[in-house]
Amino acid sequence: MSAKDTVLVVGAGPAGLSAAATVAAMGKKAVLVEKEDVLGGAPIISGYAKLVPSGEWAKDAIGRMVSRVEGDGNVTVHKQTKVSKLDGEAGNFTATLSDGSSVKAGSVVLATGFTHFDSINKPEWGFGTYEDVLTTTQMEQMVSSGQIRCPSDGRVPERVAILLCVGSRDRQIGREWCSKICCTVSTNLAMEIKEISPQTDVFIYYMDIRTFGLYEDKFYWKSQEEFKTKFVKARIAEVTKSPDGRLLVKGEDTLVKRPIVIPMDIVVHAIGMDPSLENPEIAKIFGVGLEKHGFIDKAEQYTNSQGTTRKGIYVCGAATGPDDIDSSIAQGQSAGARAVADLHGQQKVAV
Amino acid sequence: MSAKDTVLVVGAGPAGLSAAATVAAMGKKAVLVEKEDVLGGAPIISGYAKLVPSGEWAKDAIGRMVSRVEGDGNVTVHKQTKVSKLDGEAGNFTATLSDGSSVKAGSVVLATGFTHFDSINKPEWGFGTYEDVLTTTQMEQMVSSGQIRCPSDGRVPERVAILLCVGSRDRQIGREWCSKICCTVSTNLAMEIKEISPQTDVFIYYMDIRTFGLYEDKFYWKSQEEFKTKFVKARIAEVTKSPDGRLLVKGEDTLVKRPIVIPMDIVVHAIGMDPSLENPEIAKIFGVGLEKHGFIDKAEQYTNSQGTTRKGIYVCGAATGPDDIDSSIAQGQSAGARAVADLHGQQKVAV
Repeated sequence: MSAKDTVLVVGAGPAGLSAAATVAAMGKKAVLVEKEDVLGGAPIISGYAKLVPSGEWAKDAIGRMVSRVEGDGNVTVHKQTKVSKLDGEAGNFTATLSDGSSVKAGSVVLATGFTHFDSINKPEWGFGTYEDVLTTTQMEQMVSSGQIRCPSDGRVPERVAILLCVGSRDRQIGREWCSKICCTVSTNLAMEIKEISPQTDVFIYYMDIRTFGLYEDKFYWKSQEEFKTKFVKARIAEVTKSPDGRLLVKGEDTLVKRPIVIPMDIVVHAIGMDPSLENPEIAKIFGVGLEKHGFIDKAEQYTNSQGTTRKGIYVCGAATGPDDIDSSIAQGQSAGARAVADLHGQQKVAV
Repeated sequence: MSAKDTVLVVGAGPAGLSAAATVAAMGKKAVLVEKEDVLGGAPIISGYAKLVPSGEWAKDAIGRMVSRVEGDGNVTVHKQTKVSKLDGEAGNFTATLSDGSSVKAGSVVLATGFTHFDSINKPEWGFGTYEDVLTTTQMEQMVSSGQIRCPSDGRVPERVAILLCVGSRDRQIGREWCSKICCTVSTNLAMEIKEISPQTDVFIYYMDIRTFGLYEDKFYWKSQEEFKTKFVKARIAEVTKSPDGRLLVKGEDTLVKRPIVIPMDIVVHAIGMDPSLENPEIAKIFGVGLEKHGFIDKAEQYTNSQGTTRKGIYVCGAATGPDDIDSSIAQGQSAGARAVADLHGQQKVAV
């Protein structure tokens, strides 16, 4: 392997797996570096259930992406490994890896993803205090298990509340962005809960429902009409416990302008997407800029799509801001193609 | 040119231009077929003003994409041309063009875009009846001209209303999808209007504000806080004219549950994205399936991203459903890479 025919891909979630597969499909070599001991990124590591919009189980869909890359002779995988140093410049980078090896690469794709918001940072909503307050990823794991039960005592919940925008659109806790996909994921999760546990009623508390594009009728309308999910436009103040052990969701219904206190058996936090906790370190090692929230900054996007602020280094997926899996895959392929074009020396960036 | 080294790209909007540039950057030939007499697609043909999220003028940003492709020896452009017939199969297609020529291509990228919703189909909202009711594209043209004036008599408007979801999220008129980007475009348009005409107040009537991801604070909050755009959650019933010549926007404020009748000087329809009117013809000629709304249907998206229902034919951008320009560009690059991988015969689709 030489710098001339190799692309270094950092991160093996949906975006990085796509980038690596694209590089390999072009007849070039991809070196894929992943800090965890499994490939697949958040959908695998956090145990997502069925993905939107396909409805396919994460382990099958993302598993297929993993197999494709693992079975490709043009892709070398380093698990439990990080890039600790990057020397050189576009066309001739040398990366030093934490496993002691070094990689020569003509270009680099960052697919380093995001960090789930930690609900502990929103203490008034009960996570960490009450056993029956969960995050969406925990609820997805429960869906995967095939049984919907209250963690506290194993009873079948009569009512489940999903609170949207936990760690998103919230200036008080420094999260000014929207996490883009939680609305759609939550409408889907409500349907999955109802499917497994028909006697459970699911309530979604929202500011705006952002099921954009074709997700509108496929998820929002279907969840309401076929699965009877109840949508409540509300500002939630706090989650407390009532004497009978149930949870109380307190706030204001902003449509009828009245205070609401509704007893729930399970409360789910639809947690947002933070910039990866490692972005400051990534920015330093790779010499790329971050935008004001801490996501990896992008270059001009019309003729330098997937470009970072540094020549020869591309970025894709949720590393640049909250995004969904399908977009991350498209961006991963796009970044892989850009990185290969650099090897060809034929990339034309009009200025 | 032979089928072995050529990709046929249909449509020269942001997605198609990206696909063609990617094919060329890989050292392969792209034949770009565009039905209009200019390249650039909707942003150029409809005269968009500043694009979201970059804030760059459409003619500059998309113009740069056009120049890149026009100046590339690997790209052949056919303007005012359509594909009238496609013979053969993946790896060895022959397309007959309406200009009499024929193209041998190993793979095909469809970047055939969308059709703007025609506001005439929502007659109760006044378009076509009152001169001062415009569409977002007409308003963008006015912004580009640098002056905000009522078309009826040239006066500076005291109040402008932007009505969201015109031709979107509306079962009554058979548009069940959300058009994804109109919310963001409208919050941006409100700021552009205020910038040119500080004495004008802009009102946005909405069901939900869907400024997803990093568009939340960059457009929604900024429009509210710095540019004083007024957001009114409402159901609009009709737009009529008052005796003094001003427009009346009538409906219900769904937050205070009260009827509203507010006099406006200009009313802007934030028009949605319909499937291209030509999709039935495109489906027939290229042998690809359409999804239930009439957009071009996609294959499995994890290892066959940008795939259509037909082998060797890929799709990108708003041809598959409402999408924004940045996504269309990423998808265009992604589709271009997939199409080139087919030429290499190295595309691995895990099943």
